[in-house]
Amino acid sequence: MIASSWFNQHSALLQDAIKAEKSRGFYTPFPENPKAYPAESDEKGKLAFLSKMNTDFDELLQTRPSRFEGEEISPWLGTGIGIKYPIFPDKLLVLQANQAGATWKNFSVNDRAGILLESLHRAQERFFEIAHATMHTTGQSLMMAFQASGPHAADRALEVLAVGYEQLNRYPESVSWEKPQSKTTLTVSKKFKAIPRGVGLVIGCSTFPTWNSLPGIFANLLCGNPVLVKPHPKAVLPIAIYVSILQKTLQEAGANPLTVQLACDTQTFPITRDLVEHPDVRLVDYTGNSGFGNWIEAQSILSNQVVFTEKTGVNSVLIHSTNDYAGMIQNLAFAVTLYSGQMCTSPQNFFIPQQGIETLEGMKSMQQFGDDLHATISGLLSHPKIGSSASCALGNDQLLRKRAEAQIQPGVTRWPEIPAAQNEEFPEAVLTSPTLLGTNTQHLPLISKEWFGPIVFLVETNGFDSALKTAAGLAKQHGMISCGCYSTDESVMQTVAETMETAGVQVCFNYHGGVYVNQNAAFSDFHLTGGNPAGNGVFTNSEFVSRRFFWVGHRFG
Amino acid sequence: MIASSWFNQHSALLQDAIKAEKSRGFYTPFPENPKAYPAESDEKGKLAFLSKMNTDFDELLQTRPSRFEGEEISPWLGTGIGIKYPIFPDKLLVLQANQAGATWKNFSVNDRAGILLESLHRAQERFFEIAHATMHTTGQSLMMAFQASGPHAADRALEVLAVGYEQLNRYPESVSWEKPQSKTTLTVSKKFKAIPRGVGLVIGCSTFPTWNSLPGIFANLLCGNPVLVKPHPKAVLPIAIYVSILQKTLQEAGANPLTVQLACDTQTFPITRDLVEHPDVRLVDYTGNSGFGNWIEAQSILSNQVVFTEKTGVNSVLIHSTNDYAGMIQNLAFAVTLYSGQMCTSPQNFFIPQQGIETLEGMKSMQQFGDDLHATISGLLSHPKIGSSASCALGNDQLLRKRAEAQIQPGVTRWPEIPAAQNEEFPEAVLTSPTLLGTNTQHLPLISKEWFGPIVFLVETNGFDSALKTAAGLAKQHGMISCGCYSTDESVMQTVAETMETAGVQVCFNYHGGVYVNQNAAFSDFHLTGGNPAGNGVFTNSEFVSRRFFWVGHRFG
Repeated sequence: MIASSWFNQHSALLQDAIKAEKSRGFYTPFPENPKAYPAESDEKGKLAFLSKMNTDFDELLQTRPSRFEGEEISPWLGTGIGIKYPIFPDKLLVLQANQAGATWKNFSVNDRAGILLESLHRAQERFFEIAHATMHTTGQSLMMAFQASGPHAADRALEVLAVGYEQLNRYPESVSWEKPQSKTTLTVSKKFKAIPRGVGLVIGCSTFPTWNSLPGIFANLLCGNPVLVKPHPKAVLPIAIYVSILQKTLQEAGANPLTVQLACDTQTFPITRDLVEHPDVRLVDYTGNSGFGNWIEAQSILSNQVVFTEKTGVNSVLIHSTNDYAGMIQNLAFAVTLYSGQMCTSPQNFFIPQQGIETLEGMKSMQQFGDDLHATISGLLSHPKIGSSASCALGNDQLLRKRAEAQIQPGVTRWPEIPAAQNEEFPEAVLTSPTLLGTNTQHLPLISKEWFGPIVFLVETNGFDSALKTAAGLAKQHGMISCGCYSTDESVMQTVAETMETAGVQVCFNYHGGVYVNQNAAFSDFHLTGGNPAGNGVFTNSEFVSRRFFWVGHRFG
Repeated sequence: MIASSWFNQHSALLQDAIKAEKSRGFYTPFPENPKAYPAESDEKGKLAFLSKMNTDFDELLQTRPSRFEGEEISPWLGTGIGIKYPIFPDKLLVLQANQAGATWKNFSVNDRAGILLESLHRAQERFFEIAHATMHTTGQSLMMAFQASGPHAADRALEVLAVGYEQLNRYPESVSWEKPQSKTTLTVSKKFKAIPRGVGLVIGCSTFPTWNSLPGIFANLLCGNPVLVKPHPKAVLPIAIYVSILQKTLQEAGANPLTVQLACDTQTFPITRDLVEHPDVRLVDYTGNSGFGNWIEAQSILSNQVVFTEKTGVNSVLIHSTNDYAGMIQNLAFAVTLYSGQMCTSPQNFFIPQQGIETLEGMKSMQQFGDDLHATISGLLSHPKIGSSASCALGNDQLLRKRAEAQIQPGVTRWPEIPAAQNEEFPEAVLTSPTLLGTNTQHLPLISKEWFGPIVFLVETNGFDSALKTAAGLAKQHGMISCGCYSTDESVMQTVAETMETAGVQVCFNYHGGVYVNQNAAFSDFHLTGGNPAGNGVFTNSEFVSRRFFWVGHRFG
């Protein structure tokens, strides 16, 4: 009853989303501008977050946990946030998921869509609370935390519903198949059903706890699969809030709230491997490092498990020529600074021809480019507002260690240290700055891996063709998620597009203004292509949803 | 030019196919009744086949082979057919495929579709030749060879074009993304392209050399991938004719004819493994035994290869009750006789409750059921026309050995040997008859594997619920492609449907008349579901096509 009324209430939104997904233009029903929300929203959200600190998280409808544990640390406050989450044995989680799945699959697609759309609607009312939760677990600035964990994540979830809704309604529920024979007609009545595959496991990451997880969660639920949400122990709260909203909405609609469960663990007693290997877990969504992602993919073969991954990539920027050198530098400076290089789309390797970059002011050498980029980043980070809002606060010294490690690699020259931004509101926060390192294509192993964090290699190449060939090779062998290119020459651009697309890479050309290579817009940009080892968790192509269920046609003679 | 005129010429057919695929009703643009073709077609086709015997196959546009080899034996004639095919080094085949792919990907989707539709049109003119080629390689009767390798295979190929054409046209080629800002509008122009994955390898089987291979070939080509067609050395000619038609059509359209190549090998020097492991082979379609299929799937993980398989299944028939006992027996007798149990959909395990089968004439015991089935099969096989046209001719004694092996398994009782059919036209042909074996669920390992060929187990179970549980377990663990069920009780039928669909099985209920559990109709029935270990080569769901390419969206700032 209530699920179908929710469906009716939100069906115009769903229809708009279905149209938008196909037309690929600008569409974002969840505004990213905080000013589009009531004035007191931020303050309320902040208070809601603060009131949760040092308590046991009690919004879930999962009862009788083994114990409560929590390990989150606010990089901005420099202290633990003291929130503890219920811990359950992994086998119990799967058992409960199976039980919930047995009834969830009988909900109509419309009812499932109604419940999921209503959940997004309710989540929107808590975007600011989710923003503060994200900020104080991931170290993102408030603005970034708001946009990534709120509207952008909700847009991606809605996009999945749009793609899935069409697929699940592709075939008629029943049909009479009538074959004319010489004297009579042979009739078979047929019934078509989309069958969910079984328990889905969505493994989150520490940097984007909701943005990377919502698509898999919503895709599984729409297709009738129960879901276990396994957050990174360092970034639980943002996704815990989403799960609690989903559970309450499910319960109101008469569904089992355990259709989605939070499956927390700790760094000391991880349960991810056990969950992945459980024979009833039929679907895995994973965001994280390639090592564990490759293990998940390898073991999946034994059990016909369907796996979607976002692993690591060696992102590149190919620089040939520009007629807006200052704009290019400004754009790239921001791109490398944003979230201190911790986005899976953050650019890492900048390929610059030995001959230099053609500009309206003449050729610019790699040294000159590095000096200019260095100066612009320094300016950005010293800006009282932009500096700390573009940076991230570090929850631990792992990034600093990585950065130091990069700086002492053989074959690397260093630009001077850039002072990190300051944040007056959070004096305890440890911020950092990108480190610019010069090298060349002789040091291929160095630039063939992802250096997660604020580490930028300026790579001198023996001409642009060599740069392109190197970048395409890296993409094919090690994966690549984002790629920028600057060129004023149409034929060069075409060659770059054709070479990189074959390596599964989509290219952002000549970004000078307010869009950055790190950013992907829901309903318009595919997050991954699925065409290189960075993973197949494309947000959102048709198989991201269609592989979560299968069709059967029962026939009646 | 010519490709686009072909597209226009055949576009009404394509549009009809697109509609039919969604509505799932009866649709077969390639008539399966030989009488729908000109009267002299059969004679002409036969002569065309006979004229090829004892020659080197010279219709391919692949030049300079290493040598010619041929191993096909006609089970009907009892002799080799003496046709030799060109053999090429596997690395050369891949190299040439790569070269052809580099230009093929630049053909528009419409042009590719035009060429493929025209090829089907041309193949239709050679259906009878292909029928005789199929008959004299697979041992199928002429009628079955005609239908399976001609119209039914062409229907399946067209179905793939319908599903793929829509997918490849899902997104606009370009769009202007315009994001309103406070003062201005941020504009990014975007270009979307469907990128083919690379060389596709289609590995054929000895029983259905065209029906099982055309969907993968056509799907790859439509998506822009070059294809290597690796036939079974015992069944080359039928698919060689299709490949030669495709090559000539490609050439006429100005495409590289080597966009599709026949990749023959011999049983002594097989090349399949080398082709599968070649790093440029990005797609594999495989029909055959589970052992090799599982190896292909396992190795694919290392290289992100996309694999579609049809492996083996343990097909079952669940018998509960019927109000047309004679019709049921008649239907099942034909189903087990057809092609001597060599269809991947042939039923093998018949589960019968200890209490017997409820019929209008009272309970029928398993013994009675077996006796009646035995008598009806005997009648079928002794029928002068039906007997040999339903049976297959055996190219070697493998099936007879398998049959003998089944008969001496522990826990098995035997019904008397049924005399095989006779065929006057081909007195040399060795035909065989189904063997009926009684057992029970105590002997689970016996019925847990596929006994390829005319081997039928009547399995006594401790009640119908136990039968259903056993069948579902077999499907989940060992795969199942077809499943029949007889029941007059609606609630039993519903339980069967719900239990088996969870195991990835679609059920044929109460087939009494002229449709058989072995048969799947293009545009209406999915061949596999992809929901159990029998494989994921679903003819045709959306992912059967969508996973052969990926989307990129290049962006221009």
